[in-house]
Amino acid sequence: MNLNNIEKVCINLSTVRNNIPLIQCITNYVTINDCANILLAYGASPAMCEAYDEVFDFTKISSALYINVGTLTKEQEEAAVLASISAKVNNTTVVLDPVACGAIPRKAAVINRILELGRVDIIKGNIGEIKFLAGEASAVRGVDSLDSGEGALDACIRLAKKYNCIVASTGKEDFVTDGTRSAIIQNGTEMLTKITGAGCMLGALCGATAAYSEDKFIAAVTAILSMNLAGEEAYETVKVPGSFKVKLIDCIYTLTEEKLKKEGKIIWQ
Amino acid sequence: MNLNNIEKVCINLSTVRNNIPLIQCITNYVTINDCANILLAYGASPAMCEAYDEVFDFTKISSALYINVGTLTKEQEEAAVLASISAKVNNTTVVLDPVACGAIPRKAAVINRILELGRVDIIKGNIGEIKFLAGEASAVRGVDSLDSGEGALDACIRLAKKYNCIVASTGKEDFVTDGTRSAIIQNGTEMLTKITGAGCMLGALCGATAAYSEDKFIAAVTAILSMNLAGEEAYETVKVPGSFKVKLIDCIYTLTEEKLKKEGKIIWQ
Amino acid sequence: MNLNNIEKVCINLSTVRNNIPLIQCITNYVTINDCANILLAYGASPAMCEAYDEVFDFTKISSALYINVGTLTKEQEEAAVLASISAKVNNTTVVLDPVACGAIPRKAAVINRILELGRVDIIKGNIGEIKFLAGEASAVRGVDSLDSGEGALDACIRLAKKYNCIVASTGKEDFVTDGTRSAIIQNGTEMLTKITGAGCMLGALCGATAAYSEDKFIAAVTAILSMNLAGEEAYETVKVPGSFKVKLIDCIYTLTEEKLKKEGKIIWQ
Repeated sequence: MNLNNIEKVCINLSTVRNNIPLIQCITNYVTINDCANILLAYGASPAMCEAYDEVFDFTKISSALYINVGTLTKEQEEAAVLASISAKVNNTTVVLDPVACGAIPRKAAVINRILELGRVDIIKGNIGEIKFLAGEASAVRGVDSLDSGEGALDACIRLAKKYNCIVASTGKEDFVTDGTRSAIIQNGTEMLTKITGAGCMLGALCGATAAYSEDKFIAAVTAILSMNLAGEEAYETVKVPGSFKVKLIDCIYTLTEEKLKKEGKIIWQ
Repeated sequence: MNLNNIEKVCINLSTVRNNIPLIQCITNYVTINDCANILLAYGASPAMCEAYDEVFDFTKISSALYINVGTLTKEQEEAAVLASISAKVNNTTVVLDPVACGAIPRKAAVINRILELGRVDIIKGNIGEIKFLAGEASAVRGVDSLDSGEGALDACIRLAKKYNCIVASTGKEDFVTDGTRSAIIQNGTEMLTKITGAGCMLGALCGATAAYSEDKFIAAVTAILSMNLAGEEAYETVKVPGSFKVKLIDCIYTLTEEKLKKEGKIIWQ
Repeated sequence: MNLNNIEKVCINLSTVRNNIPLIQCITNYVTINDCANILLAYGASPAMCEAYDEVFDFTKISSALYINVGTLTKEQEEAAVLASISAKVNNTTVVLDPVACGAIPRKAAVINRILELGRVDIIKGNIGEIKFLAGEASAVRGVDSLDSGEGALDACIRLAKKYNCIVASTGKEDFVTDGTRSAIIQNGTEMLTKITGAGCMLGALCGATAAYSEDKFIAAVTAILSMNLAGEEAYETVKVPGSFKVKLIDCIYTLTEEKLKKEGKIIWQ
C-alpha cells in the first residue's frame, strides 16, 4: 500500500488513540497542567515523572520522553540530562523543546548536554530558538521570537542535518523537516500566542505522535497540524483567551482524521 | 439522635462549609492549582505550604494535611515526612495519596517513612496503588491503574487493618473502609479520567471533610460522593474535557446536601 | 496638558498594550499559569524566569520584576533576593507580593532581605499582610486575611513612608498610597476570593502597569481597577468559580480605557 503523506498523518493520529502512549514529561511548572491535560485529551497517557531518582528507570518504560527546558529547576535540569541518557540506552523517543535558548545562556548549556550525551529525535521550537541552535542570529525577547520567519526553513534543514533529527519550527507558518523532506504547515490562529503554553502543549503532542511511529517527520507534522486545526476550530467559536484555552482542549479531544485530511493546508517539499 | 450514614454525610458537607477548614497541601505541581481551586469551591481554605522550613509549624495550625507523592521534589519529600511527624505530634488529620507507588519504587519509600514516623488517617488511591500497598500484585502503567477492580474491597480492608486507618480506593466503583464498615460508591463518570488531577482533587477534598469530623470513614465517603456527583452533573452538560474540568469546579461549588441524599448510590456494608 | 488621575490610569493601560512590557515573575507554582495567562491577556509578555543561574542577567533585560513569596522553594528564595539586587543595580521596577508574611515567619525574613538588599517599587498585599509589615497586629489565617480593614489606609501610608514605595492593600475596599497621595478603590466582587490566585494575578498586573510608567502610584491603581472591573464584568455573567476564572481572563483581554473611565469608583485623597 502506497500512502501519501496526509494519509500517513491520519494513521498517526489513530495510532496514538489505539496505543495510548505513555508520555514522560520533564517540563516547566508554568504549563505542566496544560501539557498533561492536552495529552489526555489527545488519547495519550501523561506522566510528569521528573525526580532525579526516578527518571532513569521511568524513561525505560515510557513510550516517549518530552523535555522542555523552560524554567527548569536544578533538580529538573539534572533529571532531564539523565533521562535523555536513559532514552539513548533504552531506545525511547525524545522530543526536545529548547525554550528561550537564545535569550538565556544556561538553556543552551543544558540543551548541548542533552544533544551530546542523550538522544533527541525531534527538536521543536519557535523560529528564534531554531535559528539560535542552527548558529544564526535571530531576534528574541524573553521566551518569544520576534523573528520574521525569513530563511526559517533553511535554518531548520541545517539544524536537522547537524543533529540528524527532525526539526519543527513554529511561527506564522510552521516548518518540519528531516533535512531532506520538508513540510510547510499553513493552518493555525494567532490566538495560540495569546495563551501561555501553546508551544509546550505542542511539544508534548509531538511526544504522543512520535511514540509509536517510525516516521518521526510525519509524527511532528501530525502534532502541529492537530494543534493548528484545534486552534482554528476553537477560535471559530471563542475570540477571547481564557475561553479559548478551554475550548482548545475540547477540540483536541474531538479532532478527527477526517478533519486533518480535509482542512490541513500543507506544502510538502 | 440516631443518624443514618447518608445523613452523616450531609452533615459532614455542612461542617466543611460552616468551619472553612484550613487544608495544608503538599502536592505535585501538575494539579496544585486545581487542588487549591476545588478546596475553595467546596468551602475550605487551601494553603499550599510545603517549604521544609515552614511545614512543621504550619501543620500545627492546619485543620488537616493532604500529602500527595506525585512528582515530589527532594525538598517536598523531606517536607512531607516532617509535616506528617508534626501532624502526629500536634494531632492534625492526615490524608495520604500514594500516587504511582506501584510503578515507582521511590514513592513507596517515602510513603513508608510517612506511615512509620508520621500519622495517616486516610489513604486514598486508585485500586492499583491500594493493592500495591496491601502487598498484592496489580497492573499499573505510569500513574494509572489498569486493574479490573476484582478483589478491591478485600485489599482495602486488609490495608485499613494493617495501618489502622481509613482506606479509599477509586475506580469504576469506589470503595471506602475502616476495616470493619465499608461503603461501595457507584456514582461517577468516566470523564473524570480524561482530565488530569481528579484523583488529586479528591484527595484534597478528603482533607476538607476529615478536618472537623470524628468519623473519618464518613468523611472519605462524603468527599468521594461529592466528587462523583459533581462529575456526573458536569458531564450532563459538557462531554469534552476542557469544559468539563471548568464545570466540575462549578458543580462542587453548587453541590447541596439534598443532592448528596437524593442521588448518592452507596452500598453500606 | 493637565491630566486628571483617571485619565492617567487610562493612558497607563494603553502604555501596557503599546509597549508589551516583559514581566519577569518569580512566583509560587500554585498560580504561576494564571499569572502568565493574565499578563498575556492584558497585553504584556510574561517570563517566569526564576533559576538562580539565570535571574541576575534576566532582570537586567526585563521591563519589571514581580516577586511573590507564596510557597517559594529554596532555589526560588535565593533567586528572588538576587533578582531584586539585580533590579537595584540595573534600574528595573520591582513589585513585591508578601504572601502569608504574617502567618509564616520565614516569609518575613525573605521579604526583609529583599527590602534591605534589593529594590521595591510597589508592595501589594492583603490588609493582613500590609499591617504585619507596618508593624501592626492583624488577624490572619493561612494565606487569608481576616482583618476588618479598619485603619487599613493608615497602615498603608505608614508602610509607604517606611520603605519609600507604593503600597497597595486589597480587601473589601482596596487602598493605594505613595505616602502622600491615596486612592480608595471601591469596585470588585467577592467572587475574586473564591478562586485561588486573584491576588497573585493582580500583583503580576502591577508589574505590567508599572513597567513603563514613571508614576508607580497610578500604575498600582490601574492594575487594581483593571482586575476589579474585569471581576465585576465576569461576575455579571457567571456566578460560579470555575467558569468565573475563565471569564476573568477574557474580561481582562477585552478591558477598555472607556470602561476604566466610566465604571471606576475611586476616591482620590
